[in-house]
Amino acid sequence: MTRYDEYLAAAAERQRTDLFEYLRIASISTLPEHGPDIRRAAEWVAAHAERIGLRNVRLMETPGNPIVYGEWLDAGPDAPTLLLYGHYDVQPAEPLDLWDTPPFEPTVRDGRIYARGSTDNKGPLFTYLAALETVLAVDGRLSYNVKLIVEGEEELRADHLEAFLEQNRELLACDACVISDSALYARDVPSIALSLRGMAALEFRLETADADLHSGMYGGVAPNALHAMARLIATLHDDDGRVAVEGFYDAVRPLPPEETASWESLGFDEEALRAEIGARRLIGGGEHDPLVRMWARPTLDVHGMWGGFQGDGIKTVIPREAHAKLSCRLVADQQPEPVLEALQAHLRRHCPPEAELTIVWTLPGAAPMTMPRDAPIVEAGLAALGTGYGREAVFFRSGWSVPVAALVKERLGVDSLLLGFGLPTDGAHAPNEHFDIANFERGTRTMVAFFSSPNGR
Amino acid sequence: MTRYDEYLAAAAERQRTDLFEYLRIASISTLPEHGPDIRRAAEWVAAHAERIGLRNVRLMETPGNPIVYGEWLDAGPDAPTLLLYGHYDVQPAEPLDLWDTPPFEPTVRDGRIYARGSTDNKGPLFTYLAALETVLAVDGRLSYNVKLIVEGEEELRADHLEAFLEQNRELLACDACVISDSALYARDVPSIALSLRGMAALEFRLETADADLHSGMYGGVAPNALHAMARLIATLHDDDGRVAVEGFYDAVRPLPPEETASWESLGFDEEALRAEIGARRLIGGGEHDPLVRMWARPTLDVHGMWGGFQGDGIKTVIPREAHAKLSCRLVADQQPEPVLEALQAHLRRHCPPEAELTIVWTLPGAAPMTMPRDAPIVEAGLAALGTGYGREAVFFRSGWSVPVAALVKERLGVDSLLLGFGLPTDGAHAPNEHFDIANFERGTRTMVAFFSSPNGR
Repeated sequence: MTRYDEYLAAAAERQRTDLFEYLRIASISTLPEHGPDIRRAAEWVAAHAERIGLRNVRLMETPGNPIVYGEWLDAGPDAPTLLLYGHYDVQPAEPLDLWDTPPFEPTVRDGRIYARGSTDNKGPLFTYLAALETVLAVDGRLSYNVKLIVEGEEELRADHLEAFLEQNRELLACDACVISDSALYARDVPSIALSLRGMAALEFRLETADADLHSGMYGGVAPNALHAMARLIATLHDDDGRVAVEGFYDAVRPLPPEETASWESLGFDEEALRAEIGARRLIGGGEHDPLVRMWARPTLDVHGMWGGFQGDGIKTVIPREAHAKLSCRLVADQQPEPVLEALQAHLRRHCPPEAELTIVWTLPGAAPMTMPRDAPIVEAGLAALGTGYGREAVFFRSGWSVPVAALVKERLGVDSLLLGFGLPTDGAHAPNEHFDIANFERGTRTMVAFFSSPNGR
Repeated sequence: MTRYDEYLAAAAERQRTDLFEYLRIASISTLPEHGPDIRRAAEWVAAHAERIGLRNVRLMETPGNPIVYGEWLDAGPDAPTLLLYGHYDVQPAEPLDLWDTPPFEPTVRDGRIYARGSTDNKGPLFTYLAALETVLAVDGRLSYNVKLIVEGEEELRADHLEAFLEQNRELLACDACVISDSALYARDVPSIALSLRGMAALEFRLETADADLHSGMYGGVAPNALHAMARLIATLHDDDGRVAVEGFYDAVRPLPPEETASWESLGFDEEALRAEIGARRLIGGGEHDPLVRMWARPTLDVHGMWGGFQGDGIKTVIPREAHAKLSCRLVADQQPEPVLEALQAHLRRHCPPEAELTIVWTLPGAAPMTMPRDAPIVEAGLAALGTGYGREAVFFRSGWSVPVAALVKERLGVDSLLLGFGLPTDGAHAPNEHFDIANFERGTRTMVAFFSSPNGR
C-alpha cells in the first residue's frame, strides 16, 4: 500500500461526504430560477479548492455564471503547466417522475451514486480534487504546475467561457488542457477518447394561423401547425435513418482503416448495446457499423417537439403554433456554422406552404476535435490510467461534444487530454444519472498517479 | 315596444350581472383540480333556474358531474313538451398568456363579452334562462311544457349523460330537444344548422427505448421517439390535406345538389374566412368547396403532440417517448367506432419499426346527425329567429359535434333543434373567447318569441 493509498483510505469517508454535499446543489444552468444554486455550487468548489491546497482561488465573474479559478505553480519552470477543466452546472432533472430517488439527494445503490450531475461532471471533477488533495498532502508538491477552471455554463452555451479564455490568456497560459468531462469506453476498460464530435443546435417554431381554432368549426380548412411540424420533421431523415439535409455529409472524411481495425480489441457487442438502452432496434444501420455511427458519423436528433393541448383528456383545438429543438453532432471537417446554415436552408425549403417558419435561436456549440496520439501528455495519461485501473489502457473515440476542447485550442493554442471516468451507461442527461463508486476510486488513483507522475518532473 | 321588451329593458342590468357571476366560475371539466368549481357552477344554475320560476329544480348526481334539472309543465297536456339542453362546464383556458384579459373575469370590449365559456355554452344557455324568466313573468305561462337539463361534462365525454338519459327516460320524456349549444351561420344571419358532424378521438404514445439517452453518446444508433412520431403523424394526410387513413371516406355520401345550391344565399367568402383566422392559406382544397369541407366532409386533426425537453435552452436528449391526441369529425353514415378502428389500424400499420405504439384511450364522442327540415319544431324555431333578428331565417349545416343530439335521438327517441346564438368567430376553445352582446340580446328575444309562440299552444 502506497502512502497515497493510505491517505485516500483515511480520507475516504470525509471525501464522500464532501462529494454528496456538492451533488445536493441543484446547479441547473438552463433554468433561470436556479441562479442562486449556480452561485452556491461555484462557491462550494472555490471553498473546497482552497481547502485542499490550491492557491489564488477565486470566483471570476463573467456576464453569465462565475468561473472558479485556482492554481498551484510551484512545480518549477521546467515542469509543464496544465489547465484542468470541469463544470459545476448540471442538466435539468425532468421528467422527475422517472427518477427512483430524488435527483438532488445523492443515494448509493448497487455500488453507484445516483444524483443529477453525478457523472456529468461533478463526480469526475471531484476525482481531480481528491487526487490534488492527496498528492499535495503526501508529497507537498505536484509534478505539474496546474491551473484549475470550473465553469457553470457547460450545459448552456460556451460564449462566456470563450470570452473568459480570450480575456485571460496570460493567466491561463499552459502547455495542455486536461478535461474531466469525458467518459471511459466501458467499465473496466481504462481508455482515452482521442476524438470528440462537435455540436450545433437550433430551435424553431411554425405558425399557421392567428389563433388556436375549434376543429368542429374549422376542421377541413384551417391549417394545423402540428401537421406541418410532423411533415417538416419527417423530412430530416430518409427511410434508413440517414440525415436528409442537403450537403450534410459533404465535410465528413472516411476513417483510416487501421483505426477501425484497432477498435476490434474493444469487444463491442451491438446486441448488448441494444439491450442496454432497451431499444426495440438500433437505427441508422446498413452502411456503417454502430461504433462508426456513434463516433465518426454526424447525426441530427430532435430533442423536444411540442404544440397544442397536453393536459388530461381532450381539447379539440387546431393549434396555431408548434415548436421543436434539435441538434447535430459533427465530425471531421464539419464546422457548426455551415451545418446550421444547411439545416436552416433545409427547414425553409421543406416548410409546408401553410406554415410560417421562425428560427428562434441557433447555437454553434463546438467544432469536432482530434488529439494527436503521440503528444507527451497523452502518454502520461495512458500510463496513469494503467496504474489507476491495473491494466493496460487503450484509445477509442467519443460521440460526445466537449466545447471547451475546441475553445482552448482556438483561444489558448493547446490540445486537450480527455481524462474522465464516467461510463456511457451512467445516464448523463437522463433520469437516474449515476456514477460508479469503483470509477470514483480508480479515477482518483489514476489522477494521483498522473499528478505525481515522473513524466511531469 | 312589447311587454316582453319592457320587461327585458328593466331587467337588463341585473341579468348582465347574473351572467357575469356565472362566467366567473372556472368550471373546467377536463382538469380534475377544478372539481369544486364544477359544483359551484351546477349550484349556480340550479339556484338561478329556481329564481326565474322553474319548478322541481335539483342537482341530479351522476358518477361524474351533477346534472341540473328543472321543469315547467303547466302548458297543458296538448302542448308539446321540450327538453332544453345546455352545459355549465367549459374548456381549459390555456395558453393563458394569449388572453388579453383574464379568462374568468368577464370583460366587455367592442360590444362583446370576453370570457372562457362566454359563447360555449354559458352565454347562449343564459338567453334561454333570460327568456324563460321574461315569458313567465309577463304571461305567467309558457307555450310549451319545458324540462331543462344542464350538464357538466360536455367538454369531457358524454358517458354519464347517456346513462342519465337512459335511467330517467320517464322524467325526461318529451317531443323534441332544443339545444342552446350551437352557433349561427354568421353575424346578422338568423340561421338553423340542420346537420352536425360527429366526433371520435384518441390519444396514443410511442416508445423507443427504456430511458431518455444522451445524443452525444448514442446519437447515430438510438431510436428517437420524436422522429418516429413525426413520421407517423405525417402519414395521416396526403400532400393535398386529404385524410390518408384507409377506408376513412367509405361511409361518406355525396351532398344533394339542391342543398349546396341553397348555400349560395349565405354569401360565403373564402378569402374573408382565410383572413378571419389569420391563415397563410386554407388547407384541403381542390376537390371540395370550403363550406363542404367544413360541414359535410370528415376531418382528422392532431390537437396535441409532445415529447422531450420543452424548457428554455437546450437539453441534448434522445427522447424515449412521444405523445399525441387527435380526433376526427364525422359526417353522413360514419360511425365513431368503425372510424376509431380504421384509425388504430392505420397507426399500427404505419408505426415505424423502432417504436412501440400504445393507444392510451379512445373516445367515440358522437355520431353525426341531421334534423328533418319539415318538423314542426323546426318551423317554430325559424319563425322565432325571424322575430328575434328582424329578418328571415335560413338553414345551413354545422361542422360542430353536439353529442347530446345523437344521445337524445338514441335514448329518448326525439330529434333536436339547434337554436344557439354563438358565432363561428367567437373563439370557442381558444384564447379570447367571447360572445356578442347583440347576439345575447337578439337571442334572448328569439327565445322569448319561441317560448311564447302560438305554435306551441
